Amino acid sequence: MVFQATTSAPVNIACIKYWGKRDTSLILPTNSSLSVTLDQDHLRSTTTSRADPSFTSDRLWLNGKEEIVKDGGRMSTCIKEMKRLRKELVEDKDPKAPQLSTFSVHIASYNNFPTAAGLASSASGFAALVSSLAALYALPCPPTTLSLIARQGSGSACRSLLGGFVAWEQGSQSNGLDSHAVQVAPESHWPTMHALICVVNDAKKGTSSTSGMQRTVETSPLLQHRIKHVVPQRMIDISKAILEKDFDSFARITMADSNQFHAVALDTSPPIFYMNDVSRAIIAVVEEYNRVAVETTGKVKAAYTFDAGPNAVIYTEEANVKEIIEMIVKFFPQQEKFKDPFGLFGAQGLGEGKLPQGFNEAVAKTWELGSVKGLIHTKIGGGPRVLDEAEALLNAEGTPKTLA
Amino acid sequence: MVFQATTSAPVNIACIKYWGKRDTSLILPTNSSLSVTLDQDHLRSTTTSRADPSFTSDRLWLNGKEEIVKDGGRMSTCIKEMKRLRKELVEDKDPKAPQLSTFSVHIASYNNFPTAAGLASSASGFAALVSSLAALYALPCPPTTLSLIARQGSGSACRSLLGGFVAWEQGSQSNGLDSHAVQVAPESHWPTMHALICVVNDAKKGTSSTSGMQRTVETSPLLQHRIKHVVPQRMIDISKAILEKDFDSFARITMADSNQFHAVALDTSPPIFYMNDVSRAIIAVVEEYNRVAVETTGKVKAAYTFDAGPNAVIYTEEANVKEIIEMIVKFFPQQEKFKDPFGLFGAQGLGEGKLPQGFNEAVAKTWELGSVKGLIHTKIGGGPRVLDEAEALLNAEGTPKTLA
Repeated sequence: MVFQATTSAPVNIACIKYWGKRDTSLILPTNSSLSVTLDQDHLRSTTTSRADPSFTSDRLWLNGKEEIVKDGGRMSTCIKEMKRLRKELVEDKDPKAPQLSTFSVHIASYNNFPTAAGLASSASGFAALVSSLAALYALPCPPTTLSLIARQGSGSACRSLLGGFVAWEQGSQSNGLDSHAVQVAPESHWPTMHALICVVNDAKKGTSSTSGMQRTVETSPLLQHRIKHVVPQRMIDISKAILEKDFDSFARITMADSNQFHAVALDTSPPIFYMNDVSRAIIAVVEEYNRVAVETTGKVKAAYTFDAGPNAVIYTEEANVKEIIEMIVKFFPQQEKFKDPFGLFGAQGLGEGKLPQGFNEAVAKTWELGSVKGLIHTKIGGGPRVLDEAEALLNAEGTPKTLA
Repeated sequence: MVFQATTSAPVNIACIKYWGKRDTSLILPTNSSLSVTLDQDHLRSTTTSRADPSFTSDRLWLNGKEEIVKDGGRMSTCIKEMKRLRKELVEDKDPKAPQLSTFSVHIASYNNFPTAAGLASSASGFAALVSSLAALYALPCPPTTLSLIARQGSGSACRSLLGGFVAWEQGSQSNGLDSHAVQVAPESHWPTMHALICVVNDAKKGTSSTSGMQRTVETSPLLQHRIKHVVPQRMIDISKAILEKDFDSFARITMADSNQFHAVALDTSPPIFYMNDVSRAIIAVVEEYNRVAVETTGKVKAAYTFDAGPNAVIYTEEANVKEIIEMIVKFFPQQEKFKDPFGLFGAQGLGEGKLPQGFNEAVAKTWELGSVKGLIHTKIGGGPRVLDEAEALLNAEGTPKTLA
């Protein structure tokens, strides 16, 4: 008998940013955060976990390449915690259950998006790891409980255990048991929420978020004010905006929080920069787009947000996506034809970039080809999925299948 | 008889930044600030003011071009206030004094640095305006009193009324009478303080500081924390560092405050960016230079600071200037030969850019020619100077002389 499970897990992009740990070992954050889970149809990590008495150690392959599962490391912690749950919740209660917690595991994981895309794969990766082990171990656990384990792999991974709009509540306990992800609203609540990822070319390798956020905690005089006096109210306000499907408020808070996250990074010593001149130009274009929208409708229509890198994610409602893609392509011409997963542009593809009436073109220049090296159009999506046998990434020997 | 005076006034570059007004009409700031006055031998505004009963209105020429002195405008306010002081302090006390306050004035002002250099000329310009009128009117006023008037022309101009290290105390009175500049230490206290201005090429026209700072006051949640809890202590700490000639502390505070000013600009809605990728690269180079210095000596040797634009000003002590210029030129090759006002490099000019041992060259690439389009080397300097007749900028008719 083969004990094996395969799951996929989504990427999430925060609207209220996580930046700073109060406990670096348990990965407990200095503030709550909130994200949108993106559709796994477009971006996902897929993971197969197998437990077998013949395996001599826990092993893991990422995109076909073995990664060492270092004792005390983050992968090891997650695997150990999941085995503990298997024992406590299943084997200790049912003596006939296979003693999977005593077997070593082999794990193969694969991201369907290139590392070069600059998307944080650790969130979807650890969420897929934890959800595949949960399926393998048949754990009777809700996603919120599993999020406690994923959090110890990579903080923001806890938010990828759920679909829709997800809050990571910072919690107050020192053992971290109340620092978990909860769903604010499922994807079905606001299915017209779309996302356009602008992959920005960047020569410079940025500061890693793990080391960067602790430098901010140690040196930024502004961070404490953000943590204590800004984020708590924003969590309340953006949750309300989501529940009311109030895009205008959702967008304003999202943009303000992205900018404030980069502001505290800049207030760090030495300062940390993740956005570059192309990122700034995307902001200028979206701000101008919103200025025109506010003039005509009283409300903004797009929200940019930037994580620890130069890529922009633009949230908007379905009705505006086409206009926004044309606008972005006008200022940031694309090398490759736009992959149009929703068939917005039909057979003829993208036309001449049109700008809304009253748009001041002078806010940005037309950038050289490849400054934005790719556009990924996706939308809000659900939590991890259990896949069937055919999707498994391990072969009979328990090593990664060669992918076509 | 010709009633005329000519003065020159210096540029100043803040270490603790002024950003935000509590009164936009009187120009009263939300926080105190502190600057270094730069040497007029290199950068200055020169102004000639003449009072004559034949003049029919107050007129002003800037770099040979007439600017309209609009009633209620900033130039008009300064001229009016200076006339009031003339009347109160001179004419009302001495009936025999010429009634200059009743005459219109003609004023010609000239900056010896190109506008394209991107240096704020309003500070030196208003300081020269006020000091030339003070000389014309023979006002028995110390610079601190005159700084109250210059402040109403352009906030940071008040700091150009004094040499050396100058604090602009925010004050608390609603009439602004305690919001003035005071000297923390004269230039003779620390004459080895040098400055290297890196003029950065920038296509984009930035947000004006006048409108930008009020947008920050209205929308940045972090600004209030900076004003109340960060700047007051920094003013104390940097004043102490100056009095003790503790360059390490002076530099660390200067860099942190520059970064925090740009952080609150970014925390504004819509966000304000003044630094670009070249500015960020200069920061990376100086931070690496300091990292190596700290490893070998325990102290940093350079401090960058950026005002409301992409240009860097690097403060350092005389002994390190040569090394820093070579380093900057290595990463940012110069189109024009370095103007070497202190004769550091002798007849052969700048050599191959050498980097200190242990310097990680990968922190920045070698930028294309002209990314930093000019370097200006100067040092700390004194307050406004009264010049003699030969330097006057007005001809016999009371209009600007044609400058060679």
